[in-house]
Order: sequence, then C-alpha cells, then structure tokens
Amino acid sequence: MSTSNDRRIVPVILSGGSGTRLWPMSRAAKPKQMLALTQSSTMLQLTAGRVQDEDLYTSPVVVTAADHATAVEAQLSAMGISPARLILEPCARNTAPAVALAALTADPEDLLLVMPSDHVVLDDKAFSAAVRIAMLQAERGWLITFGISPHKPETGYGYIRRGNELGPGVFKAARFIEKPPLALAAQYFAEGCYDWNGGIFLFRADAFISALQAYAPNILASAKLAIEGSRNEGYRVLPEGGVFRKCPSESIDNAVMEKSDLIAVVPVDMSWSDVGSWDALYDIQRKDSSQNVTSGDVIALDTEGCLIHSDGPVVVTIGLSELVVISTGDATLIMPRGHSQRVKEAVSALAAAAHPTL
Amino acid sequence: MSTSNDRRIVPVILSGGSGTRLWPMSRAAKPKQMLALTQSSTMLQLTAGRVQDEDLYTSPVVVTAADHATAVEAQLSAMGISPARLILEPCARNTAPAVALAALTADPEDLLLVMPSDHVVLDDKAFSAAVRIAMLQAERGWLITFGISPHKPETGYGYIRRGNELGPGVFKAARFIEKPPLALAAQYFAEGCYDWNGGIFLFRADAFISALQAYAPNILASAKLAIEGSRNEGYRVLPEGGVFRKCPSESIDNAVMEKSDLIAVVPVDMSWSDVGSWDALYDIQRKDSSQNVTSGDVIALDTEGCLIHSDGPVVVTIGLSELVVISTGDATLIMPRGHSQRVKEAVSALAAAAHPTL
Repeated sequence: MSTSNDRRIVPVILSGGSGTRLWPMSRAAKPKQMLALTQSSTMLQLTAGRVQDEDLYTSPVVVTAADHATAVEAQLSAMGISPARLILEPCARNTAPAVALAALTADPEDLLLVMPSDHVVLDDKAFSAAVRIAMLQAERGWLITFGISPHKPETGYGYIRRGNELGPGVFKAARFIEKPPLALAAQYFAEGCYDWNGGIFLFRADAFISALQAYAPNILASAKLAIEGSRNEGYRVLPEGGVFRKCPSESIDNAVMEKSDLIAVVPVDMSWSDVGSWDALYDIQRKDSSQNVTSGDVIALDTEGCLIHSDGPVVVTIGLSELVVISTGDATLIMPRGHSQRVKEAVSALAAAAHPTL
Repeated sequence: MSTSNDRRIVPVILSGGSGTRLWPMSRAAKPKQMLALTQSSTMLQLTAGRVQDEDLYTSPVVVTAADHATAVEAQLSAMGISPARLILEPCARNTAPAVALAALTADPEDLLLVMPSDHVVLDDKAFSAAVRIAMLQAERGWLITFGISPHKPETGYGYIRRGNELGPGVFKAARFIEKPPLALAAQYFAEGCYDWNGGIFLFRADAFISALQAYAPNILASAKLAIEGSRNEGYRVLPEGGVFRKCPSESIDNAVMEKSDLIAVVPVDMSWSDVGSWDALYDIQRKDSSQNVTSGDVIALDTEGCLIHSDGPVVVTIGLSELVVISTGDATLIMPRGHSQRVKEAVSALAAAAHPTL
C-alpha cells in the first residue's frame, strides 16, 4: 500500500517533557525521553526510529527545550538522523504552543504526525497501519487522534468515545473525557466504544492552525510572533523568547481537540504505554519466570514480582516480593509495586532538602 | 580503686577478621573492624578507645593480617595511639595461634586482655569494672573469660555455665556449650546460670602458654618457631611465614578454654554485640519513633522497622516495613529483617559471578 498521495508525512516529535515521575532515573537535566528504559535505545531514539521509513515520512521536526538541544542532537545523530528542524522552546508552554511552532514552520498542506517522545509502542507495524488509515481523513482537514485500545479500566488516562464511522477504521470523536474515577473507567472498559487518548495526532498544518485560530487565538498569536522573531542556525530554530514566554500554557487536548467538531479517532492496538510511572514500566515489560523485570547489574535471589533496575551499583535482593527498586549511581529508590505514584512524595522530600539528586 | 598491683594490663586486640557477613560494607580489603558501623569511629577504634585508660592499661598489642597493617596503623594513629607491638600474621590461623604470638612476645607475668576488634560494647564502665574484678583471679594463674549476660535465648553464641563462686563476681566455668538449639537456649536463659561466651579473655601470658603446652602443644610449637624467626620493624613484628603457615587453625575456645580446669568466668552486663549480622546491628542500635535505624543520606517515608544505611548514594524508601537496606557506592543489598544470615547467599552468588564488589 502506498500513501494516499505523493507527499510524505512530517513527524513532529515533542521532546519538551521534564517530569520526575521516574525519579531517580529521570532528572531535570535528563528527562524520561532521554533515558533507555525498555531497550538499549532511549525513548526519544525509539520514537524517531518508529518514523524512519522514508517512503512514508520525511526527516522529523523535533520540538525541545533549548537546554536539551545538544543531547537531542547527539541521540538522533547516533541513529544517523538529522532533523528537518530542531525547534528550541525558550520555555515550556505545554503541547499546544509547541505544536503551533511546528505547524507555523511547516508548509500549510504538510501532514504533521505529532508524537510524544517518551511513550512506548511495542507494535510498530500496528502504529504504521493506523497512520496510513488516518491519512485520507487528515488530508480532508480533520484532526486525527489515535485511540489506544484499553486493556484494563485505567484511571490514569483520558478517554475518547467513538462516534459514527467516517471511513474504514476512522470514527468521529463523539466525546473527550478527562481521567475518570474507577467505576466510570470500568463502565467505559465494559462498553467497548471508548479508547485511551494517547496524545498522538495526525493533521494538516493548516487545519491545526485554523483550529487554533478558532479555539485558542492567543496561543496562535504568540506562536506567530515568536516564529516571526525567530533566529535560525542551520536546522535549529530559536523562537523569540520574550513573546513566547507570554504564550498561554495549554495542552493540545484542552486547546483544540476537545473543542473542534472536526476530530476523528483511529483506534489502534499497538501495546502502548506512556510509561508514566515505575508501575507502568513494569507492566509493559517481559517478566522472567519469577515475574521479575530486571535490568542492569542485578542479582535477585528468592525474589518475585519485582521491578529492579540498576544503571550503576550492583543491586542484590534476597527474599523480596512486589517491590520497585531503582538504583542509579547517586540514588536508590525502594517502594512497593502498585504505589509508584508516590514517587512524588520522594521528589517533594528531596526538593524540601534541596537535594542535589533531584 | 587502683589495680591489684602496680603492673598494668596489656590489651591484645585481635584484628584478623575478614568476614563478609556484613556485605556490602565488609569486604576482603575492608573487614568489619575497619568500618564505622555504630558511630563515626570504626569498631577497631572503639575497641582501642575502650582500653585507653593509662592507669589501667599499657599501649595495645594488635594482631592483624599483614595486608591490613597500614590501615590499622592509620586508624590508631588518628586516635593518637601508637601500638606497643603490631603483630602481622602471615596468614589467618584463627584465634589461638594469634594470641600465642602475642603471649610469646610479652613478659611472662604480663596480664593480657584479649579482645576481638569488631564487637560492640555500649557500657564501657561495666566492662572496666569487670576487668578490675577479673584481675586478682588472673594474677593467680587462672584464665578468665567474660560472660555476657544474656537478654534473650540466642542460638548464635556459645554458652558458659557458671560453677562455684571463686571470689566476688568470679565463678569457676563449669561447662562450655557450643551454639545450642533454640529449646536448649531457652532453657539456659530461664535457668539464669548461663552466660554467652563473648570471646574476651584476661590471663597472664605464662598461664596461657602453659595451657597451650598442655592442650595444644602443636600450636605453641609453631608459634614459638614463628616468633624465633620473626623480623622486627619498629613496633611491627613479622613472624616467620613458612612456619606459621603450618600452625593448626583453631579457636582459643577449642584449643584451651574448653579443656583447662583453671577457667573462670566474670559475668558482665555491658550491652554487648558481636555485630555478626545486619540484624544484630539493628538490634544494638537506638530506634527512631518509627522503629527505624537509619544512617547516612537516607529519606525514609512511611517506613517502619527498617535498618537503612548509606555511605554514598541517597536512599529513598516509601511504604516499606521490616527491611534491611544497605547501600555503598558500588552495591546495594535489600532483604527482610530477621533473615540476615542469608547474606551468605548473596556472597555466594557474587563469588560465582566473580563480582568485583566482593
């Protein structure tokens, strides 16, 4: 199957994240997408590798924090990838402004495939198939979101209700729902016509800009001024900081997707995870015969159901069950599995102590 | 109170241990006595400090492995202590030969106070009082062992049954018992006339040599030859290695104490521990309000009943209970409290992997 016309898709990789939900591995200076969590490649590299098919994709546009420019370039360069543009945000303003910068520097008719750089997709073929399915509807000016097929009643994600089928495998998005309580999540899961909102989108640049104009004109205006005042250094684009700093901080979902009527969802079952916690990382990975997931220099004796990672010191466990153990050169985190949202308590305590490992 | 005569006691500190029961802190190159486990001073320093009263004690004689000479000297020097003699064993042959070397290089009538260098004694005053009580009986040619007052039916120590009282606070040792099973330990504990054998002794050098001659003549002969062929470098004594290597390896208990009829026991309640395991270290130390013992860079959130030590990386725990967590710069050990004899499983696994942290 070839693409629906001769133009190729422009991948837009969002690498602006700076979370600490995976402390002690993720740090301000080394956010999740820069880490090799599931394989020897980093999440950013895996994301870039997912759109390396030259028949379907151009070189990627990467939007990242100015501080991370060199690290991003090094990781892409190690894969032989030179970005089409590396847009360096002067400050973090969430996803809508980031995508606006990418859309405003693209050709209006470019098809943009917007992807977070820190998600796991194990089934790249299913992903590619879904992208191909989405193209025709996107060409027609619709904003496409990929709906992740739920495999449990998860309360940590937003949901999208599928409406009428617009074409083979493409549905009108009937409703966006913020993270639901468990009872509601269980109901959605049982009903079978809801997908998780995975934050991966496909649309024409001009369609997205039109939607911004309609639903978030302030964001569009700030982004336009920042691009008009931008400096270019090779493929690096440095938007004007003073203007961009005044841009409202808003997610693409809030700013556009939940408001426009031209939203379609393409459901895809591709073993996806946003790896938003150590528990999620455990869930997505292959277990050994004791239901452990281990990586690095780990000796697990009489240990079961644990996630144990070391990227430095040897970790020896004896007689443990259902724990998360993460050891870096300068920090070790230990807590029960299933409670990994509590990492934020650790981060708060470290922040209160002005600890250098944060 | 002055000593029973004008001669002072010669402390003999045995620093030949090389155990790995406290891995990952204790290593071949840095055995337990070289570590600061309970305070900022090391176990060796605390032991030497216990006999620094110049009214009662001379400078110490230290018996250690040749490999550890420099480290021992540095630790003593930091306390302003210069040993009377530093006897460097060419190889480890257990305690009877080590004490034989010390006795043979002492004056025959010297009172030797033999002490392991890796035990905790929290009540130094009780220790000194017991030593003073023991002196008169030792002057008479008896071999004195200090009997640790049991506070629970421990199965990990040998026991001594008290016999007739020979003088105030001094009893004939009626019987030595190897580590008993729990039922027997409970019986001893209930009967109240048994003490733990703590491996601390007081005797005249000539009395010990006579006992060796009677019960372990091979050890005495080897030690004599090793001393006759020894080299002196300042206070360093280097016994002749070829002869000493042929010396039988035997504990002072097996070789002499369990055989002679001239054995007395001085019971002492001095908050003693041989710190033979991480559990023992937990038991001996002060707990915080959550029953945790923590040291080093540790943040324990919603954590109770844990022993957590770091001498390098920050250790953050959330929602844990009853665990041992020991973190050094290059290794982390995690296991349930109450099972710390299982460290040997870790050591075996590391040995099998020829791991550099052993």
